[in-house]
Amino acid sequence: MTPPGFTGSTLDRADAIRSDPAAIAALAADPGARLLDLAAYEPVATDAGRLGWAAMPGQDDTAFLGFVDGAPCFVAIPSPAPAARRTATLFPILDRLVPEDAATYAAARSLADWHARHHHCANCGQPTAPFRAGWGRRCDACRTEHFPRTDPVVIMLAEIGEGEDARVLVGRQPAFPKGRYSALAGFVEVGESIEEAVRRELHEEAGVPTGAVRYVASQPWPFASSLMIACIAAAENEAITLDTTELEAAMWVTRADVRAALDGAPDAPFIAPPPYAIANTLFRRWVAGA
Amino acid sequence: MTPPGFTGSTLDRADAIRSDPAAIAALAADPGARLLDLAAYEPVATDAGRLGWAAMPGQDDTAFLGFVDGAPCFVAIPSPAPAARRTATLFPILDRLVPEDAATYAAARSLADWHARHHHCANCGQPTAPFRAGWGRRCDACRTEHFPRTDPVVIMLAEIGEGEDARVLVGRQPAFPKGRYSALAGFVEVGESIEEAVRRELHEEAGVPTGAVRYVASQPWPFASSLMIACIAAAENEAITLDTTELEAAMWVTRADVRAALDGAPDAPFIAPPPYAIANTLFRRWVAGA
Repeated sequence: MTPPGFTGSTLDRADAIRSDPAAIAALAADPGARLLDLAAYEPVATDAGRLGWAAMPGQDDTAFLGFVDGAPCFVAIPSPAPAARRTATLFPILDRLVPEDAATYAAARSLADWHARHHHCANCGQPTAPFRAGWGRRCDACRTEHFPRTDPVVIMLAEIGEGEDARVLVGRQPAFPKGRYSALAGFVEVGESIEEAVRRELHEEAGVPTGAVRYVASQPWPFASSLMIACIAAAENEAITLDTTELEAAMWVTRADVRAALDGAPDAPFIAPPPYAIANTLFRRWVAGA
Repeated sequence: MTPPGFTGSTLDRADAIRSDPAAIAALAADPGARLLDLAAYEPVATDAGRLGWAAMPGQDDTAFLGFVDGAPCFVAIPSPAPAARRTATLFPILDRLVPEDAATYAAARSLADWHARHHHCANCGQPTAPFRAGWGRRCDACRTEHFPRTDPVVIMLAEIGEGEDARVLVGRQPAFPKGRYSALAGFVEVGESIEEAVRRELHEEAGVPTGAVRYVASQPWPFASSLMIACIAAAENEAITLDTTELEAAMWVTRADVRAALDGAPDAPFIAPPPYAIANTLFRRWVAGA
């Protein structure tokens, strides 16, 4: 089974070293140290499909990513934040990377982007500075410590029926490419479990009541820094009441429909989400019996 | 099977209303509106084990929680943040609440605490003000929108062996009460999946290499606003290399050991985490065959 996109990084994060500034300085000065300089957050792909790294000397503002193949790896902290949040050229570059390097890029991008957008203390407003080798920022004025944010998002299929008769709910947002449908999704809010967030979102966006929820897979999504949590929820009935501020259409599809969509069949009733998205993984796992 | 602590709130979050300030103002003026005023973040429990609510009139700075039993419910936004983060008297109060009201409290507490600690824009440092009925804060200076933070945390048992011979890894932090052991845990970092975070933490804290990871359950944890994700990971060997900055001891325990701990048996090899903690749920699910 293909693992979800942006997973499988070979990065050894070496957490224990982060709190040792002298060790980090020595690693940064190591001739074998590598730097990822994400101009506009875009990576460079080599002809061999590997992430392009630069040499370190002279680079000041960096975060320590960890070790890749034994080499200490850093990412440059952009200041101010690059304007481009997600360029049209990004996914063609990612498609040329081996999966483990795309995953390393995802971690570096989320970390660099968090720094770029968090130069001040949310508690008191004063400027903050990186600490813990770039895995946090500290306010010298009020002593508050801030840590990179990871936002959990549930992405789910409501399912009705069993075996080959089973159908799942897919929806489309107005911004999707023509014909594209995907799983419904939304941020997990404070004070709710994964299962409660799944049921709330299916109820809010499609009016579909659901009961038991089963977990399927997860992935990091670096736009900006989500943790995607893919689930399947048992629907209690199939009437759809669409929240048109979120979705422009929703429908129930069969396993045959989803297989056709994943195969890119010309008569498929919808176009599947691309392989990097965990919705693609979720569809693949569901047709395989998840 | 007992659900995890802090789940089961009967709150209808009514997300669609949040973006309608006139509707929120009308609900706040409703004679049936209820206010949760979390002085030092502590709730009031009634004799019937219900969350104590106050009347709304005159309250300015509030966030709209949603509807409970049809009544519009709000929480007061504290300013500045109360000093006490987690008092000794809190859990005795929670123990008197019915589970669904403890869950509503958890949501309200995390939301109120997020506001109290985020009065400034992390991007530019200027003051921010609540919007979306208190489910966000906006900076008028740089137009950045900020949303409540939910930090995913993995909490997991490494497991070795099968059936009644299976054993799981438990550890204790220096701050734990005497005799207490629990599942290992840590924050999910940017750029990793749940499964990768589980394997990284077990490797970092105990030196235990693991393979397949299975998801068990989740809960919100309102100190300050975590999403706890409980898993079991297949250990590849049982040698323990302790990270003594995190744990002071770790050991492998059998199903009989865990049953004894959950039962509070005097000869149990350790004291189990309390019922509110999802580690307790995780132990219960594991002895039941999860």
